[in-house]
Amino acid sequence: MSDQTKEYTETPESNPQMESLTRPVVPALDEVLGKPFKVLDDGFIRVIDYMGSDESIVQAARVSYGKGTKKVHEDRGLIRYLMRHHHTTPFEMCEIKFHVRVPMDCWRQWIRHRMANVNEYSTRYSVAIDSAQTTSEAEWRLQASGNRQGSGGVAGESEGKALTEKERYLQSLAREIYDERLKMGIAREQARKDLPLSTYTEAYWKVDLHNLLHFLYLRMDSHAQYEIRRYAEIMGHEIVAKWCPAVWEAFMDYRVNSSSLTRLETEVLAALTKGDKEQAVELAKSFNWLDKTTGEPKKNRERAEFEDKLSGLGIKAPW
Amino acid sequence: MSDQTKEYTETPESNPQMESLTRPVVPALDEVLGKPFKVLDDGFIRVIDYMGSDESIVQAARVSYGKGTKKVHEDRGLIRYLMRHHHTTPFEMCEIKFHVRVPMDCWRQWIRHRMANVNEYSTRYSVAIDSAQTTSEAEWRLQASGNRQGSGGVAGESEGKALTEKERYLQSLAREIYDERLKMGIAREQARKDLPLSTYTEAYWKVDLHNLLHFLYLRMDSHAQYEIRRYAEIMGHEIVAKWCPAVWEAFMDYRVNSSSLTRLETEVLAALTKGDKEQAVELAKSFNWLDKTTGEPKKNRERAEFEDKLSGLGIKAPW
Amino acid sequence: MSDQTKEYTETPESNPQMESLTRPVVPALDEVLGKPFKVLDDGFIRVIDYMGSDESIVQAARVSYGKGTKKVHEDRGLIRYLMRHHHTTPFEMCEIKFHVRVPMDCWRQWIRHRMANVNEYSTRYSVAIDSAQTTSEAEWRLQASGNRQGSGGVAGESEGKALTEKERYLQSLAREIYDERLKMGIAREQARKDLPLSTYTEAYWKVDLHNLLHFLYLRMDSHAQYEIRRYAEIMGHEIVAKWCPAVWEAFMDYRVNSSSLTRLETEVLAALTKGDKEQAVELAKSFNWLDKTTGEPKKNRERAEFEDKLSGLGIKAPW
Amino acid sequence: MSDQTKEYTETPESNPQMESLTRPVVPALDEVLGKPFKVLDDGFIRVIDYMGSDESIVQAARVSYGKGTKKVHEDRGLIRYLMRHHHTTPFEMCEIKFHVRVPMDCWRQWIRHRMANVNEYSTRYSVAIDSAQTTSEAEWRLQASGNRQGSGGVAGESEGKALTEKERYLQSLAREIYDERLKMGIAREQARKDLPLSTYTEAYWKVDLHNLLHFLYLRMDSHAQYEIRRYAEIMGHEIVAKWCPAVWEAFMDYRVNSSSLTRLETEVLAALTKGDKEQAVELAKSFNWLDKTTGEPKKNRERAEFEDKLSGLGIKAPW
Repeated sequence: MSDQTKEYTETPESNPQMESLTRPVVPALDEVLGKPFKVLDDGFIRVIDYMGSDESIVQAARVSYGKGTKKVHEDRGLIRYLMRHHHTTPFEMCEIKFHVRVPMDCWRQWIRHRMANVNEYSTRYSVAIDSAQTTSEAEWRLQASGNRQGSGGVAGESEGKALTEKERYLQSLAREIYDERLKMGIAREQARKDLPLSTYTEAYWKVDLHNLLHFLYLRMDSHAQYEIRRYAEIMGHEIVAKWCPAVWEAFMDYRVNSSSLTRLETEVLAALTKGDKEQAVELAKSFNWLDKTTGEPKKNRERAEFEDKLSGLGIKAPW
Repeated sequence: MSDQTKEYTETPESNPQMESLTRPVVPALDEVLGKPFKVLDDGFIRVIDYMGSDESIVQAARVSYGKGTKKVHEDRGLIRYLMRHHHTTPFEMCEIKFHVRVPMDCWRQWIRHRMANVNEYSTRYSVAIDSAQTTSEAEWRLQASGNRQGSGGVAGESEGKALTEKERYLQSLAREIYDERLKMGIAREQARKDLPLSTYTEAYWKVDLHNLLHFLYLRMDSHAQYEIRRYAEIMGHEIVAKWCPAVWEAFMDYRVNSSSLTRLETEVLAALTKGDKEQAVELAKSFNWLDKTTGEPKKNRERAEFEDKLSGLGIKAPW
Repeated sequence: MSDQTKEYTETPESNPQMESLTRPVVPALDEVLGKPFKVLDDGFIRVIDYMGSDESIVQAARVSYGKGTKKVHEDRGLIRYLMRHHHTTPFEMCEIKFHVRVPMDCWRQWIRHRMANVNEYSTRYSVAIDSAQTTSEAEWRLQASGNRQGSGGVAGESEGKALTEKERYLQSLAREIYDERLKMGIAREQARKDLPLSTYTEAYWKVDLHNLLHFLYLRMDSHAQYEIRRYAEIMGHEIVAKWCPAVWEAFMDYRVNSSSLTRLETEVLAALTKGDKEQAVELAKSFNWLDKTTGEPKKNRERAEFEDKLSGLGIKAPW
Repeated sequence: MSDQTKEYTETPESNPQMESLTRPVVPALDEVLGKPFKVLDDGFIRVIDYMGSDESIVQAARVSYGKGTKKVHEDRGLIRYLMRHHHTTPFEMCEIKFHVRVPMDCWRQWIRHRMANVNEYSTRYSVAIDSAQTTSEAEWRLQASGNRQGSGGVAGESEGKALTEKERYLQSLAREIYDERLKMGIAREQARKDLPLSTYTEAYWKVDLHNLLHFLYLRMDSHAQYEIRRYAEIMGHEIVAKWCPAVWEAFMDYRVNSSSLTRLETEVLAALTKGDKEQAVELAKSFNWLDKTTGEPKKNRERAEFEDKLSGLGIKAPW
């Protein structure tokens, strides 16, 4: 925390002696400002500008909590406390602006996060970017069997080869027809209508740190689609980790690597830690996790999720 | 206004005598609830649910303004006053929920309006809707010459025929490849990547009346793209006009059919209405609308916009 | 789920046969529509209008997930799944509008929740409501010792009596001076400046179910201030429980009565369930929960929080 | 515009050659960073941090519009075009953070602007700031007669003296009682309940330029309450004017000093500029501005507003 801030938090009401400030600077982020981080085959992420740092969060929190807390917590401890207890407003005091190039299909998911500012490349004003995401022979992902929305494993070599060839043909045909339409004087806004979803777009995307972490939490998750996950991982591990290292550490400890225990799970786990397997089974039956007569596990996602948590604790399910 | 409301606004603090209410009902809207309004070749808009009516806006405004205003304005007058003076919060008290089917390219523009709730059909979970917006031979729009983002006129008959044929070929090839990918077990989330932007999607879209009017103001405008304009026009003229007729009338009078006069325009217009053409020309020169030595009109969008406003007032520009 | 909806979700793309709908109705909520629930000494909550029900959430989720999921989950199961996995957008499809009377001091906290629509009683337009929250002799809460922001226990009888008397005097003096200012023709917007924060205000407050649950999660919490907690409890237990009973049950099981385990806690708990107390202590030392040489518990909020979770599981901390 | 940006906008898709950037800097704003601008008797505004500049808006707009527009407009012209045509998203690319001290009554209005990030001084955690807005003898404003929410003129000297004396007494009594409650151990969250609305609070307030301009448009207006108007004027004329001078100029020309003409007004004005007073009168009758039989002006706010606009153009109403 800067000297000015310290002085201020010691005397918020009496005699602020508020001197001139300079903007917080994060040298580790300044170093990569403007440099493209490559993503996918032809995408990128660039940091264009930022406001604030770990210290800005502490500074904002100290305004809320007043003088009283200043000795109790050091800065890192305060940031961890705020993260653990979901006191989110101080994290909104940091802001970052990215320039990204991303396939439109991925951008469709991205833009669903409403709490951000956006300027996207317009294909009404300008000719569409001449690039679409391509898939190499070894990258064709198979539909996951257990998970309706995911993928798992990749297609065989010969299938992959055939798929990649057809992709190339379709993409170049679509571009050819687009270019032809433009040459015939068709309006750009209409000519673009049959471009593939894989076509790259670009945008400026500005977001505060709280909303960025929420985005990362959802999009770094293993259930997120591969493409957007790649962008999220780079934003997190390469950029936020440099920008606000104390926040990033707390986010990993208290969000990404934390789990929740529902009321149902807590009750069964308590029975198990007391050693009462019978009660655990009875509870599981009452939750419809097990067949009430046979005690056989039923097809039930909640039970499966709980078993995963148990195994993380080194406990075997008693059914 | 219902009796309960009247009673309430007369005695907000002393003795509310607040009786039970029933929800406001708009029979004209109830009649079309759930019925699809057709849009484009295969799109639609359906009203699924709504909350509030013209009266709900009056009711909310009366809470803000308290007892004092109740005799001055009648309901319609109050609504018109609120609209004219951009008192927007009472309009947020009405909410509507639509079910729409719309080409993804159009949806891309739609979703940029952030102040709404959205559930879109997921092509990760389900097979993409087997329909893409098609263009008939007479519907190929030419690029506007004066306006970088618009269109004007249509392509000739033989060009249109050729374009439509190629469109059909491209769309069916894209679908064929998509289906083939699925058959080969490729994950839905990846298989869809080269579907054309014209592919239809569906969504539930819920929005308050204030934000809906803002959407309509921008998307019913002649500069909006044809496709989204069709949706906006039907939402406005067919749905909002039935739902909140007094609001709709005020919106047309005070937003859609109003114009603004900037500081620069007001000064020139005042010179003209005083009959002082010389001063008008001098002002126009000082604004860089006219060449300072020759007095010739310069290529200047602001001057062109002003000339349009003048002609709406039946005044000829003096240059 | 209504027949129309069922039919629709079975045939989203092929042959919608979309018939006319009627608005979802919740008889249990209709019964209390408009009736004031009393809160504090002179506050209230009234439900003015609502949109949607448990079924509307299912309906919106089914649009997202398409046909594929319709047989797997029944409605209640789907709602529980959505809640457990933080799929929040379908909950935004329900909306509710309240009329509340609340002390301004409490309203100051309330209004910090930005994702809502608000029309508040204006003391610029109208004379301030002639009511302030009063405190009876037995209601003076003492400052909590362990918690800087909370309260615990109440003041003794004679202190309470003295405090209540002074409160009454101060409140009536403030009102007297306010009335006097108005009588002397002072503008209402200025006359009100020294009214106590305890003065009641009224507002219409409209919010979607997702944001309402977030509000309730924070404001029903034992750390929330007593006054706003009273409003939140009534909104939750008396109103949402009637409106969307399946959502309410899932919210209690998966939010209110769930807890989280951070990365640090999971590691210590795993050591304990394996019976390895030594490792648990070593981990706790490495987290700075215990003194590294003596092993004595340090003043550390995170350790104290973990001990609470352990005791909920019937486990004693090994330090 | 910096060299990097120029280079980029010339080659957005082909060969970006994206080099490292430095953050945009505005020396005129850096000079006042952290320095308090005094407001009212004991309030202030300080700029704590900012992101972006006039150039950042141009940069974001150029991403949207692509290469095509880069020669047509120079930077200032592009900013003016964006402002005139309500293309608001590029203005969201600038962000500013203030530290303000403001009476709670004024803060109540401020916080109604939801699109901002806020951390307010908490009187649950800390003792309330020992300062309340005082009114000098000459500052007691009288209720406006024509405008229910405004003020006009000030009270006489002897009345002012009496009012100021009572204010001082009430404020010190309220503080005394507050301090006494604290001394008796009453919880801060309850002790504060009867502090006057005039008590000062402090906050960090962070907002993007688009939303800040909207705030300023409403709060610099002559109908806004004096207190918040003072804050808005300083933010506008002292801070935004330094930060983004081209935006500020455009905002004054195209927002603050512009007016609108509704459909009704346009019709009457067109009749007048054509010299057809009779038609103007007939139209005014049809709009209910004049009595339909006598032609006498009726009590009608819309007519009065129009007469103001006419007189700004040097035209006399023909009734």
